[in-house]
Amino acid sequence: MKNTIKMNRAWTMASRPVGEPKPDNFKLVEFEIPTVQHGEVLLRTLFLSLDPYMRGRMRSGPSYATPLEPGDIMQGEVVARVEYSKTKRFSVGDIVRSSIGWQEWGVIPAHLAKPVDLSLGPISTAVGILGMPGLTAYFGLLEICHPKAGDTLVVSAASGAVGAIVGQIGKINGCFVIGVAGSNDKCRYVTDELGFDAAINYKTEDVSSRFKELTSSGIDVYFDNVGGPVLDAVMENLADSSRIAICGQVSQYNAVGIAQGPRNMGALLIARATVQGFLVYDFERRHEIARRRLAGWMRDGRLKYKEDIVDGFEHAPTAFAGLLRGDNFGKLIVRVSELD
Amino acid sequence: MKNTIKMNRAWTMASRPVGEPKPDNFKLVEFEIPTVQHGEVLLRTLFLSLDPYMRGRMRSGPSYATPLEPGDIMQGEVVARVEYSKTKRFSVGDIVRSSIGWQEWGVIPAHLAKPVDLSLGPISTAVGILGMPGLTAYFGLLEICHPKAGDTLVVSAASGAVGAIVGQIGKINGCFVIGVAGSNDKCRYVTDELGFDAAINYKTEDVSSRFKELTSSGIDVYFDNVGGPVLDAVMENLADSSRIAICGQVSQYNAVGIAQGPRNMGALLIARATVQGFLVYDFERRHEIARRRLAGWMRDGRLKYKEDIVDGFEHAPTAFAGLLRGDNFGKLIVRVSELD
Repeated sequence: MKNTIKMNRAWTMASRPVGEPKPDNFKLVEFEIPTVQHGEVLLRTLFLSLDPYMRGRMRSGPSYATPLEPGDIMQGEVVARVEYSKTKRFSVGDIVRSSIGWQEWGVIPAHLAKPVDLSLGPISTAVGILGMPGLTAYFGLLEICHPKAGDTLVVSAASGAVGAIVGQIGKINGCFVIGVAGSNDKCRYVTDELGFDAAINYKTEDVSSRFKELTSSGIDVYFDNVGGPVLDAVMENLADSSRIAICGQVSQYNAVGIAQGPRNMGALLIARATVQGFLVYDFERRHEIARRRLAGWMRDGRLKYKEDIVDGFEHAPTAFAGLLRGDNFGKLIVRVSELD
Repeated sequence: MKNTIKMNRAWTMASRPVGEPKPDNFKLVEFEIPTVQHGEVLLRTLFLSLDPYMRGRMRSGPSYATPLEPGDIMQGEVVARVEYSKTKRFSVGDIVRSSIGWQEWGVIPAHLAKPVDLSLGPISTAVGILGMPGLTAYFGLLEICHPKAGDTLVVSAASGAVGAIVGQIGKINGCFVIGVAGSNDKCRYVTDELGFDAAINYKTEDVSSRFKELTSSGIDVYFDNVGGPVLDAVMENLADSSRIAICGQVSQYNAVGIAQGPRNMGALLIARATVQGFLVYDFERRHEIARRRLAGWMRDGRLKYKEDIVDGFEHAPTAFAGLLRGDNFGKLIVRVSELD
């Protein structure tokens, strides 16, 4: 690194949001990039991934990860270019993925950066279909839901980063796939572009009635990204021995306190159904295998993806708030800098 | 059979209950016992089992079994004596279990009666610890919850027909067992008589706080007989990779419409927990094996049971309403007639 670049910018959590995250819950801070020490690399962020789970990190209280404290840099995955290296593991110009958070630059120990195999897909896919969202879809569907050919599979947030992949892997596995999404455009996209068998606009249609119309013997598999009323509608339409994977509950993330809903656990008894929560990190040993399979399906044209790219690091908070409302269409990514 | 006994009595559902079952939801009817045909047996009910699931049968709408219609005989299991037989399978005096419902007498095809092995336990246990409740505890705990030595196991309705057996099988498997029950007497019973490690009176104690006091790393297994607020408290205290078996939701059975509760499915995600509904009938092929194991533990003094026996067929509806309120203490059984 020439000593010309000195300053880094990062988005911190200024305060915990109450309800929807507002601009003043975030603060853009500037500080000097620390000197790169032995064994470290300097990364320049190309793409920052924005994902609903980040809202959970802004909340206090126990979860599967330590919550952010005010003043902490927002967490998140990036794909970045190595700009300076004091390790033999990486050379300048290497493309890596890392969890440096919402930052333009990062100085980290080399083992916290993972090389990106550029032969598998475009760079941005390293935080999308070949990154955490793609792996979440892969393991959540295949390992938690055990889909079989002929099963009716429902996925919510169907055009989103995870949902779109879930539905397509469902099709590859021979399922009848119903997507639930929040606009007619999104519904058309998953049926016409991604090959889902049907789609339901939860904002304008009666989801439970539509399930009844579309399925003769109920829902065998539900990949739940949203929770709330869509999950309720699924619970009213469970097939015997059905499986529900709890991947996200985005309809609840901005809730103040715990929202109330129907007590419908009896439906699980009637259907002998299973609901299981999971985290993609639990399957870490097999991430590379999954990535190669996903890339193979992409090459074969069986797996498509759509990215919603926001240009400019300064727009990250607004884009993130929109993500929680479902404003995005496809995997939401912030382009922080250009490769060249 | 001498032709001296002519009349049968049966409890029918007169009307669907709204909320708690009331006396006028039931009607005692008298009718002639039909002639025993070739291949049939005449049964005299000794003990009638009363179980919470029967409330579900009184409800309309889809479930795992066809609902009763007004005028139908209440469903249920009995242990009975064969009083007349037109089949080689049974002789007069044989003791059998069958699902003839709330009746003093029953004429049924022989294949619908199952011989009771009297060497395994007293006659009444054929509808209790060695009947449907015992098998429910056995399969629900062992096959759905996969308890391991060292696990913290919570069971609700802990002194009841199923709960008391679940907790004791948990102890046999090396678990730390916490019972949740509705009175101090019931709590003392499960700890002092059944050997549970702790008990919580959900009517007088803050269940979630007590779980926190009693467990260092949360609840590994919850065998849910009740649903509602006790389930909510469990969801606040899940250990990683915990398993919840939905066996019953008795707190909800008298609910008018669907009660509301917290939307807490996110807790499953955080803990990577599993919730599964099940029915004892799904394990039918192994019922006899389970019965022998349960009887073995009884002989060894490791498995105790308590029966709450109501004398007199005419009291069945009142006893049943009490069961749904938790008035019973131990397995609720109606003694319909004496053996001799």
